[in-house]
Amino acid sequence: MTARPQEAFARTPEQLLDELALELPDLGGATGRFVRCVQTGNVVFVAGHGPVEKGRPVFLGRLGDGMTLEEGRRAAVQSVLGVLATLKDALGELSRIRRIVKVLVFVSSTADFTDQHLVANSASELLESVFGLEKGSHARSAVGVASLPYGFSVEIELVAEVDS
Amino acid sequence: MTARPQEAFARTPEQLLDELALELPDLGGATGRFVRCVQTGNVVFVAGHGPVEKGRPVFLGRLGDGMTLEEGRRAAVQSVLGVLATLKDALGELSRIRRIVKVLVFVSSTADFTDQHLVANSASELLESVFGLEKGSHARSAVGVASLPYGFSVEIELVAEVDS
Amino acid sequence: MTARPQEAFARTPEQLLDELALELPDLGGATGRFVRCVQTGNVVFVAGHGPVEKGRPVFLGRLGDGMTLEEGRRAAVQSVLGVLATLKDALGELSRIRRIVKVLVFVSSTADFTDQHLVANSASELLESVFGLEKGSHARSAVGVASLPYGFSVEIELVAEVDS
Repeated sequence: MTARPQEAFARTPEQLLDELALELPDLGGATGRFVRCVQTGNVVFVAGHGPVEKGRPVFLGRLGDGMTLEEGRRAAVQSVLGVLATLKDALGELSRIRRIVKVLVFVSSTADFTDQHLVANSASELLESVFGLEKGSHARSAVGVASLPYGFSVEIELVAEVDS
Repeated sequence: MTARPQEAFARTPEQLLDELALELPDLGGATGRFVRCVQTGNVVFVAGHGPVEKGRPVFLGRLGDGMTLEEGRRAAVQSVLGVLATLKDALGELSRIRRIVKVLVFVSSTADFTDQHLVANSASELLESVFGLEKGSHARSAVGVASLPYGFSVEIELVAEVDS
Repeated sequence: MTARPQEAFARTPEQLLDELALELPDLGGATGRFVRCVQTGNVVFVAGHGPVEKGRPVFLGRLGDGMTLEEGRRAAVQSVLGVLATLKDALGELSRIRRIVKVLVFVSSTADFTDQHLVANSASELLESVFGLEKGSHARSAVGVASLPYGFSVEIELVAEVDS
């Protein structure tokens, strides 16, 4: 039996993260009173993740109020990395993800800030880079909220389909 | 074999939209970096849709700040029509929808506006008109957010069950 | 055949609610134009529930604007009790719930209030008390929104897995 070429040369999501020089963050021990993801059938529901590094909240602030779009985009990337850390921890290998299904991006915003979709795009771009277009492209909502826990600028939750 | 009367005379969701003189909007080409819906198993997750006509955002503004409830209700209807355009595009026929399961309505709101449920009702009424009570009635949340992409007044996401 | 000890002595969620001296609220007749939950496969999607007692909204207000954290926590508990009333009504017995999968907690908040997770913890703690850690622990998001229907301070929606 011959390995199919696309599989032989395919890189894992973990390798692709490495190539992008991105690291899965240490989320720290505490989640308050909940768990970071729950699977039902082939579907995993991932809790809302804000940007965390070494177990501590980062990118605190509010879009439209002293925080730049570029900082918001980095906050979204860091939040997705936290989501991936949770999925890696739960699944063992990120390649067990068959499809990123749905992403919900909450952006702490003033009433005047209306570029939540641009903040969210950085999260979507990362998911497409790591899982490829076929598995990584997803349905998405992006909304501007009044405030988030710990003063997070971004919080991202996600639904994914995984193998059996 | 005789056609069962209720089926022989049943109208499709598309015909019911026609009778209501409602048209599925052209959503335009761009979604940023995501897709408009993703199916996993028999369940379709639809991305957040704001009100769009001929590929352009309409009903911009904020409830409680110069925008009337009636405009908000029309924004919600237009958002649902966008959701249906997406489902029609993905499924071919809207009759493939077995049940509207869950609707989440984000309403751009001032702190003083607390009639998000009345805005959302117009979306729910449309879904019941087009799919009938049995398939069209759904669980729903309606919340007031600080702001939405492009200055949308309303954004609606939806979960539906479809045939196999 | 001998009853397994843990089953013989296990208390139902209803009995545990009793022991906590908590009562499922009367949610009143009206939901606007939607239903309180919809099941698809083994998964139940529950609509957003604010705190209601005897069919009337309670705990109105906004965190960070005259409402204390403790009041917010009681609002979250009352919202979860409403969710459980809906599930009890739909399923007959709460013991038919195999897992609380995902909870989304909307907290009406000023821009300065960033303790949504502490408000949400009271909801999570109640779910764990009633269903036990194995079935009751769940993925969760908590966000601060501009306002909620009827002036609710909290609104909670939930996804649960139920038996076949």
